[in-house]
Amino acid sequence: MIHVMDCGTPVKPVALRPGMTVSDLVDALGRAGAYNGGSLARGVDLWERMVRDEEAVRFFGLAGAMVPAGMGGIVADLIERGHIDVLVSTGANLTHDVIEAIGCSHYRGTAACSDIELRHDEINRIYDVFLPNEAFVRFEAFMQEAFEALPEGSVLSISDLLRHIGLRLETGILATAARKGIPVYCPAIQDSMIGLQYWLFSQTHRVVIDAFRDMPGLLDRCFGAKRAGAFLVGGGVPKNYILQSMLMTENGFTYAVQLTGDRPDLGGLSGATLDEARSWGKLTEEAEAVTVYADATITFPLMAAALLERLEASHD
Amino acid sequence: MIHVMDCGTPVKPVALRPGMTVSDLVDALGRAGAYNGGSLARGVDLWERMVRDEEAVRFFGLAGAMVPAGMGGIVADLIERGHIDVLVSTGANLTHDVIEAIGCSHYRGTAACSDIELRHDEINRIYDVFLPNEAFVRFEAFMQEAFEALPEGSVLSISDLLRHIGLRLETGILATAARKGIPVYCPAIQDSMIGLQYWLFSQTHRVVIDAFRDMPGLLDRCFGAKRAGAFLVGGGVPKNYILQSMLMTENGFTYAVQLTGDRPDLGGLSGATLDEARSWGKLTEEAEAVTVYADATITFPLMAAALLERLEASHD
Amino acid sequence: MIHVMDCGTPVKPVALRPGMTVSDLVDALGRAGAYNGGSLARGVDLWERMVRDEEAVRFFGLAGAMVPAGMGGIVADLIERGHIDVLVSTGANLTHDVIEAIGCSHYRGTAACSDIELRHDEINRIYDVFLPNEAFVRFEAFMQEAFEALPEGSVLSISDLLRHIGLRLETGILATAARKGIPVYCPAIQDSMIGLQYWLFSQTHRVVIDAFRDMPGLLDRCFGAKRAGAFLVGGGVPKNYILQSMLMTENGFTYAVQLTGDRPDLGGLSGATLDEARSWGKLTEEAEAVTVYADATITFPLMAAALLERLEASHD
Amino acid sequence: MIHVMDCGTPVKPVALRPGMTVSDLVDALGRAGAYNGGSLARGVDLWERMVRDEEAVRFFGLAGAMVPAGMGGIVADLIERGHIDVLVSTGANLTHDVIEAIGCSHYRGTAACSDIELRHDEINRIYDVFLPNEAFVRFEAFMQEAFEALPEGSVLSISDLLRHIGLRLETGILATAARKGIPVYCPAIQDSMIGLQYWLFSQTHRVVIDAFRDMPGLLDRCFGAKRAGAFLVGGGVPKNYILQSMLMTENGFTYAVQLTGDRPDLGGLSGATLDEARSWGKLTEEAEAVTVYADATITFPLMAAALLERLEASHD
Repeated sequence: MIHVMDCGTPVKPVALRPGMTVSDLVDALGRAGAYNGGSLARGVDLWERMVRDEEAVRFFGLAGAMVPAGMGGIVADLIERGHIDVLVSTGANLTHDVIEAIGCSHYRGTAACSDIELRHDEINRIYDVFLPNEAFVRFEAFMQEAFEALPEGSVLSISDLLRHIGLRLETGILATAARKGIPVYCPAIQDSMIGLQYWLFSQTHRVVIDAFRDMPGLLDRCFGAKRAGAFLVGGGVPKNYILQSMLMTENGFTYAVQLTGDRPDLGGLSGATLDEARSWGKLTEEAEAVTVYADATITFPLMAAALLERLEASHD
Repeated sequence: MIHVMDCGTPVKPVALRPGMTVSDLVDALGRAGAYNGGSLARGVDLWERMVRDEEAVRFFGLAGAMVPAGMGGIVADLIERGHIDVLVSTGANLTHDVIEAIGCSHYRGTAACSDIELRHDEINRIYDVFLPNEAFVRFEAFMQEAFEALPEGSVLSISDLLRHIGLRLETGILATAARKGIPVYCPAIQDSMIGLQYWLFSQTHRVVIDAFRDMPGLLDRCFGAKRAGAFLVGGGVPKNYILQSMLMTENGFTYAVQLTGDRPDLGGLSGATLDEARSWGKLTEEAEAVTVYADATITFPLMAAALLERLEASHD
Repeated sequence: MIHVMDCGTPVKPVALRPGMTVSDLVDALGRAGAYNGGSLARGVDLWERMVRDEEAVRFFGLAGAMVPAGMGGIVADLIERGHIDVLVSTGANLTHDVIEAIGCSHYRGTAACSDIELRHDEINRIYDVFLPNEAFVRFEAFMQEAFEALPEGSVLSISDLLRHIGLRLETGILATAARKGIPVYCPAIQDSMIGLQYWLFSQTHRVVIDAFRDMPGLLDRCFGAKRAGAFLVGGGVPKNYILQSMLMTENGFTYAVQLTGDRPDLGGLSGATLDEARSWGKLTEEAEAVTVYADATITFPLMAAALLERLEASHD
Repeated sequence: MIHVMDCGTPVKPVALRPGMTVSDLVDALGRAGAYNGGSLARGVDLWERMVRDEEAVRFFGLAGAMVPAGMGGIVADLIERGHIDVLVSTGANLTHDVIEAIGCSHYRGTAACSDIELRHDEINRIYDVFLPNEAFVRFEAFMQEAFEALPEGSVLSISDLLRHIGLRLETGILATAARKGIPVYCPAIQDSMIGLQYWLFSQTHRVVIDAFRDMPGLLDRCFGAKRAGAFLVGGGVPKNYILQSMLMTENGFTYAVQLTGDRPDLGGLSGATLDEARSWGKLTEEAEAVTVYADATITFPLMAAALLERLEASHD
């Protein structure tokens, strides 16, 4: 029989204090340590170690409609502060990043509405966020002007194209990444409004976007990395593309944190555990990995605020 | 065509500040206002109004294995501060509350383990929380002693029985509720370790627990309430029992906040929207209601910390 | 290095044949054997073994709003055919069973509607099922008449009360169970419209429903069982009450199948794996157990149709 | 007050018959009509209408790890029978399709295992499916040989590349699509083992895969379509790419069925309702649309078997 004292660390009931900081709260969740609250606290610890490891390449995956929900500013801030070395995103997040960067807004709407009425009112819905068509009119003007500036007859990688766009913007993810020299990969760029705009442009222009031209640079980075870390908001293409990038090397990821609302039992990659990635060699055997199952519009700001507080504190 | 300016309030991208308080973070989520992050912020606003409404009876539903995860202290604290008038709980949460109150601990374990080995080691698992059998040995001793003190031949309600237990404890939910005179209802008390202990006791004693004896007091409270509010952690019996309690009155709930990981499309009450409750008259037509879909070990401490900060702030 | 031939049974791609029977389809899912499709097929195999084991007591747990969704007839049929020995249900399912048995119907509605309008139209909503208030008027008349027939001053168990109701009905779960002498347990009976009706009755009558009076009979059954099996539709009180019932014995469940839409990482009992139950001794070490994660309005009829087909086939 | 007779169609309780066919079962679920069981039946009805509409272009989206779970044969069969006009897939499904087509198998494993041991045994895990590294050795040989046959210096679209691969195979999705002249789109082809193999090939060869070269053909198809239908297994890039394809036309999809395990409240496209797509004009106002929330390893074979049975029946 195991005696109580052999059973490990007790769950310390969460004690709240009015006015506590976000990192105080995360510390309290960590001392309780159970379910996704516990995972969240371990995820902040691991993210902090990843960010502090100057010999590690830090990948960041961005899937799910995070920018329309107001989460883009945090990503741009993390790039600005130097906590992201490689960004992989869905095309949708980058589309909405451009929309905000050219001065349009998303709006707080509701999911309990008539989508047919919204259609008549020329409003597009993303769960409870509204986006007027007007924004796409301005988006089209900006994108076409940006594409016009590409040298006719050239062959570009997707990240070249995204840097070209980012350099024409002042705020947001693409702008900050371009300014800081952080590559932004988006393997399925065609699958977005940026892609549809590019199709429009390509009707009359001849600039080839080579689907594979980004891979040598990415893979070289992976071969050269002493260690690698991944912070994954959502699954989809960004998660898989990041995790598979280390597959060709001897190494795998040493740190991995994923925030997902999906579940493992459906077999899809988005909800797959990070342990599963160990069997493929995407994570090293010794890698530390944490999954937090919850809506990232709650967990991502919470974890990022705690991370910044801790980094600041140690900075002083 | 709807013009951008007619479309409502813009989603304000979340801006983080190292060292920000929990309520600052919730305010930032509220200004973004999207998905469950937005719901969480609206939920705190609504909870605050509910708690400040001195003419409202505030119900609190506690389902899911919250106490083993270290969430019991927050509930006891809310009772202590006077923010809960009626508590409805599952039997499991009360069992684990007693276990902690008699000095036993839950332990931080892992879900990736052999349950057969745990069985050999006499450790019970609740997802990633471990509880040694030893705790149940002490629990049995405490419970039997408590039951022995019941007057033979008496007929009690379930809340009478729980108050009797709470009065013999010094800390935790049952102790605080008993001390503050807050009724604790637990319709399915048989369905818990407290129930199994009671079965053991009843082998040799004759004390009847009348399943329905709590209803007149609860219903009287409902008939007398000017307004009623419900804060629901999880679904199950507590959610339904609370919501149905206003069904016999002319009134319904005016405020309702639920934290759940379930989903509506399966038809179960636990994941049902609060709007559905409006069709039944459980909520009034004008009631404000917010559901936050996420693990309550994240959302409950986050929301409670923000609530306490706001109440404190206004107190000064 | 493991060679392909050492890796076990190949996933056999599902081949469909127009006009195949339900059991043919389940067999095909079983030969593929992956994710929840594979679990479903293993679940049917296990259920079949459980039903064929004449020395096993077969428990059936019924949670979630299954009866309003048209699933009650399958349960009644399983009782009729002798495949259920003990039924544990939520009060809601039994309420809706009575409603159907007295000749009222549930209606096919929609979840995309105004609950305030439904309220005005006196229609209650359960996801996309509608139930007119009129049904509750007839329900009240039936229930009060049934309760009036209880001997004043008596003390009953909950299953006594439910048998009393079932004997006054001709079709459905309660009627079939009463006729076949199958006990129906419902620990949280207060938490239902049956409970509210009983409260009404108890205003003017004195019949005590002893919350614990069912436990000795249930526990005796468990102590006497050579083996026990559990088929669990949904979680909640029925799942826990069934699984805890073997806890006091030396034994545990030998067979267990659960159909659930919940998930394990939230820590709640409803979504907990059946392996977790092994650590508690609720399942034996050797027990076979299968969880199928999906909506039970799909999996339950599919599995039951396959079960009946197999039992019939072997019967010929 | 609404009278019972005004409330629509009653939920007809499901009655099972041993030996019933799959379509019989789906019909029974349809007469009940509730929750996801009801949606599944409506989804089969809609799919049947879509397939029978000879003026409609029928799109099929394939996301999630469906091929490793044995679902690839159904897709190939649907192509063979002429029920799919345009296929959009993730790269992973096509990778595993090639693996099966070259004679390797996936294996029935377990999710309850040590991924570190699997790594040592050179077995890759996809939830409860195992795939030995050996398969990737053979995959590499096949892929490199296939790529070597591409004319040096050429510029291809992604669907050209996939047709080139399919023409070298005899069975499976890519082979059947190539033989029947059905285009296979895979916008994020880089994000897969096919992509990694291509990167390897491109180290020493110069064949450009133009990311956008597929769009004119796809968009022309959309502009020319009288009506369009979408059957979506999973979300991800295939769902979005299909739905956005009609965005540039005056039209939208007239029929849409999606099978997903995701949920709408997280804001991601994979779990988004099809109604949301109406606000964007991706679906027409009058479009019929059904979402079935459940594991597609259950719903997809069930629905496809019912579809084939109905088509066959009417054929006789």
